[in-house]
Amino acid sequence: MPVRIGIAGIAGRMGRLLAEEALAAGAALAGGTRREAGAAAGLPAPVLPDIGALFAASDVVIDFTHASAAAAHVAAAAAAGRPFVLGTSGLSAEQEAAVAAAARQVPIVYAANFAPGVNLFLAIAERMAAALPPEQYDAEIVEMHHRQKVDAPSGTAVALGRAVARGRGTTLEAAGTESGRDGHTGARGTGSIGFAALRGGQVVGEHTLLFAAASEHIALTHRSFDRRVYATGAVRAALWLQGKAPGLYDMKHVLGMA
Amino acid sequence: MPVRIGIAGIAGRMGRLLAEEALAAGAALAGGTRREAGAAAGLPAPVLPDIGALFAASDVVIDFTHASAAAAHVAAAAAAGRPFVLGTSGLSAEQEAAVAAAARQVPIVYAANFAPGVNLFLAIAERMAAALPPEQYDAEIVEMHHRQKVDAPSGTAVALGRAVARGRGTTLEAAGTESGRDGHTGARGTGSIGFAALRGGQVVGEHTLLFAAASEHIALTHRSFDRRVYATGAVRAALWLQGKAPGLYDMKHVLGMA
Amino acid sequence: MPVRIGIAGIAGRMGRLLAEEALAAGAALAGGTRREAGAAAGLPAPVLPDIGALFAASDVVIDFTHASAAAAHVAAAAAAGRPFVLGTSGLSAEQEAAVAAAARQVPIVYAANFAPGVNLFLAIAERMAAALPPEQYDAEIVEMHHRQKVDAPSGTAVALGRAVARGRGTTLEAAGTESGRDGHTGARGTGSIGFAALRGGQVVGEHTLLFAAASEHIALTHRSFDRRVYATGAVRAALWLQGKAPGLYDMKHVLGMA
Amino acid sequence: MPVRIGIAGIAGRMGRLLAEEALAAGAALAGGTRREAGAAAGLPAPVLPDIGALFAASDVVIDFTHASAAAAHVAAAAAAGRPFVLGTSGLSAEQEAAVAAAARQVPIVYAANFAPGVNLFLAIAERMAAALPPEQYDAEIVEMHHRQKVDAPSGTAVALGRAVARGRGTTLEAAGTESGRDGHTGARGTGSIGFAALRGGQVVGEHTLLFAAASEHIALTHRSFDRRVYATGAVRAALWLQGKAPGLYDMKHVLGMA
Repeated sequence: MPVRIGIAGIAGRMGRLLAEEALAAGAALAGGTRREAGAAAGLPAPVLPDIGALFAASDVVIDFTHASAAAAHVAAAAAAGRPFVLGTSGLSAEQEAAVAAAARQVPIVYAANFAPGVNLFLAIAERMAAALPPEQYDAEIVEMHHRQKVDAPSGTAVALGRAVARGRGTTLEAAGTESGRDGHTGARGTGSIGFAALRGGQVVGEHTLLFAAASEHIALTHRSFDRRVYATGAVRAALWLQGKAPGLYDMKHVLGMA
Repeated sequence: MPVRIGIAGIAGRMGRLLAEEALAAGAALAGGTRREAGAAAGLPAPVLPDIGALFAASDVVIDFTHASAAAAHVAAAAAAGRPFVLGTSGLSAEQEAAVAAAARQVPIVYAANFAPGVNLFLAIAERMAAALPPEQYDAEIVEMHHRQKVDAPSGTAVALGRAVARGRGTTLEAAGTESGRDGHTGARGTGSIGFAALRGGQVVGEHTLLFAAASEHIALTHRSFDRRVYATGAVRAALWLQGKAPGLYDMKHVLGMA
Repeated sequence: MPVRIGIAGIAGRMGRLLAEEALAAGAALAGGTRREAGAAAGLPAPVLPDIGALFAASDVVIDFTHASAAAAHVAAAAAAGRPFVLGTSGLSAEQEAAVAAAARQVPIVYAANFAPGVNLFLAIAERMAAALPPEQYDAEIVEMHHRQKVDAPSGTAVALGRAVARGRGTTLEAAGTESGRDGHTGARGTGSIGFAALRGGQVVGEHTLLFAAASEHIALTHRSFDRRVYATGAVRAALWLQGKAPGLYDMKHVLGMA
Repeated sequence: MPVRIGIAGIAGRMGRLLAEEALAAGAALAGGTRREAGAAAGLPAPVLPDIGALFAASDVVIDFTHASAAAAHVAAAAAAGRPFVLGTSGLSAEQEAAVAAAARQVPIVYAANFAPGVNLFLAIAERMAAALPPEQYDAEIVEMHHRQKVDAPSGTAVALGRAVARGRGTTLEAAGTESGRDGHTGARGTGSIGFAALRGGQVVGEHTLLFAAASEHIALTHRSFDRRVYATGAVRAALWLQGKAPGLYDMKHVLGMA
C-alpha cells in the first residue's frame, strides 16, 4: 500500500512539483486543496473542499502555501492525528507557537530549506570547522546567483558562515567577517570568515565553502539546478514521518544527521 | 613549558619537515636519531645515540622512517612510558601486532595518511553517502596526480569509494564500480561508484567526490599542495597525545571525528 | 522592421524553442511548417502549406528537422533567394553536396553544434594548444553527462581533442590518447591527450580542457544547462545572415572567430 | 651549440630560478652579474665584472633585477648588438623611452608578466568577450591569493577586466564594474564586469573569468603554483629572440598570439 500524500495548494507552481515528486517516489496522491474554487482541469488529484477533508483522505499532508495558513493547518493535523510537512517561511512567533503545540500531538517536519544537499552542507560545514583550526585554515564562502538577485551574500551563505562559527565554538559576529573585499583591505584576519558574491545568468544557487591552509585546501560545493529539489526533499520528509512519534523535526532528522 | 618532540630519522626529507612543523607549532625539538653516524651539520636538533635516548629526552616521538623499525620503536615507547606517533606504511601483521601490544601501555597514533583534510574528507564522505540515497545521487570520484604516477585510481580515491560504500551500508565490491569509462559503457548503474583519473603536471594530489542528482549536485574537493601537510598532521597528533590514556588511535581521533 | 524568421518543424520541441528565442531576440515569426496537417492550436505562428510558402513569407528560415529534408529545403532557399540556417546532423555526402550547391546562390549557416560557447571553446582550444608546448603542458579533457549516456568520451570531448591536436600541428591519432585510465597505466605519455568521463544526474553537458604544467594550470570549462542554447545560437545565426554574400558558413563565422 | 644565456642578478632568488630554467631548457649559462662583489660560492655560473662583460659572453641576457638598472642594461644590449629580455616593472617614462630606443637596434622582449598561461589567458579573454554579447553573457572575475595580500582585486584581475572590455569595444570604466558585492546591491547591470576576491592559505594566484548566460556558462581558470613559472617564460622568450629583427616585443609575440 503506497503512502497517501495530500498537498495543500496543489494548483500552484510548488504544488504541481510536489505532486510530480510524490508520484515519482512511489506514493499515492490523496488529493489537494486550492485557494480558489472552480474547475480542477489538469490537476493530478481531486481538489477536496477544505484542509480537514484533505487530512481525512491522507496519510500525511505537505504544505508550502503561506505562513498565514500555518496555524489552521497544524490544528487540523493535530485534530486528525496525522503527520504534517510544513515548508512555508516567515512565520510569526504566534504561528510558530501553534506549530510547536501541534507537534506535541503529531509528528511535524518544519524546515526553512528542504533541499537535502543544502541541509547536508550546513551540517558538514559545522563539522569541518570543528576539525580544522582557524589559525591554519582560512574559511571562505563563495556564492553565485542569477543576475536579478538584489542583495549579497545570500541567506544560505550567511547560514554557512554561522555553521562555521558554531563549529569553531563562536558566533559569526565574534569571529568577524570579510564580505565583498574591494580596495585596500589589509591582510586577512585570522579566524575571520570571508564572503564573495557572483551574479550572472540564471543560476538557481551555487555555494562553495573553502578551507584554505598552506599545504592543503578542502572545499564543499553545492549547486541547485531547479526548485524541484525542494519538492523532492519535502516528499522525502513526508515518507520519513510514517510511524514517527509526535514531535517537531527538521530536515537534519529526516537526513539522519541530527 | 613547550612539549618536547623527538624525531626519528631527523636527517631525512620528512624528518626535516617534521622538525620545521614542530617548531612552527610552538613545540621544542628534543632531538633526533639518524641512520648513519657522523656530523649533524645543518640539523635543527642534536642527534641522539639511539631510540631509547630519544624517548628519554622527549615528551613524544614521531617516526616516519621505515616499517622495519616499527617494532623496536614501539617497544621503546612502551619501555619509556611515552606516547608515540607512527607514520610508516607497509607494516607486516607481526609488526602491527607489536604496535597493538605497545598501545596497551602507552597512547599511540598510527595512521596511513596524516593530512588533516584527507582524514576529514574520508569521514565526511561516509556521512554524506549515508544521507543521500543511491537511487537519486550518483557518486563519482575524480582524482588528479602528477604525470609520473603509474596506476589508477589512487589509493585515496579507492579509500573514498570504500567510505561511500560503507555509508550506504554496503561494500565497494557489492556496490559495483565504473572506473575509467571508455567506449560503449551502457547507461550508468544505480548505486555503482564511478572513478576517473587525470594525470598531468606535478600535482601532489587532488580528489573530488561528487554526488549528482537531477536537481542538485554536492561535491567535496581536497587539494594537497606539498608533502609538508603530512608533517603538520603528525605534529598535531603528537601534541594531541599529551595526557591521553594508553590505546591505539588514528587521525580521526586526533581530529575529533571518531 | 524586425527580421521575419520562418521555422521548419515549428510544432516540435526544438521548433518551439526556436520560436521563443526568435521572439526574445526581437525578430518577428513569419510562420512555420509541420509534418502532420491539422490544427495549429497553441503554436506561436501560422502553419504554412509547404517550405516554398515559408520562404516566401520569411527573410530567413531555420531548419532543425531531419537530414532527409535538407536537400529539398536548400533547394527552396536557392529558388527563393533567401538565407537559410541548417542544424540537422547526419547528412549523407549527397545531401551535403546539395547544401554546397545551394550555398553558391544564397548564404547558408550549416553547423553541427549551435551553442555559441561550445564553438568558442573549440576555437580557443586550438589556439591554446598552439601556444603551450606539449613537452611542458599535459592536455586533459574531462566531460560529464547524465546517467543515461551509453558511450564515452562524448563527441564534443573528441572534437576538443582534435582541436588540441590541430593546434599542436598533429592529429589525435598521431598524438596518442589516454582514455579511461584504470589499473596499471604506466607514466603519462608526453604529448598524449587524456580523456575522462563522469556520468551522473541529469547533466546536459559539461566539458573541461586542462593544460597542466609543473608551475601553472590553465583550464577552460563549458557547462550547458538546457537545450535552449542551441536555439539561441541558431537565431543568432539567422540574424547574422542578413545582408551576407552567398556562401557556406558555420558558427565560427557567426561568432567572428573564423 | 646551445644558446648562451646571461643572467643579470644571478645571485638573487629570481636569478637562481632563471639559471635553473635555462639549463632545464637546454641552454648554456654564460654567466651573471651580481650587486655585491665577493665570493660566488654556490652559484651555477661565473660572476662577470659588469653588464658589458655579460653581454660579451652571452647570446642573450635576461634581467629581472630592478627598474633603476633598465636604462643602463638596454644601452649595453644595443652597444653589444645582442637581444635582451626585460622583466622588471615600475619603469618610469624616461626608462621606458630608453627601452624603446634600444629596441630600434636590437630585439627586446619587455613584459609585465612572463607566465605563459597568464598571457594566454589575457589574449583569450579578449577574444571570448568579442564573441559573447554582453546582453546575454555576464562577465565575472574571481581571484584568490594568499592571506597576506592587502588589496583587491589583483592587478591581473583588473587586466582581465580590461581585456574583456576591450573585446567588447569599450573600456572598463565605460562598461562599469561591480567589485566586492555586499549588502543591497540591486540587480546586476547588463554589460558591467564583476569582481570577487578570496584570500586564504598561501595561494600564489588563481584567476577565473566566467561568462554566464541563461543556458550555458563558459569559464577560463588559471592557477599559478610557484614563481618559477615567470622564469620559465623568460627563458622561453630568450630562446625565441634568437634571429629576430630589432624591435620591442612582449609575451604575446613569444607565444604566437600577437
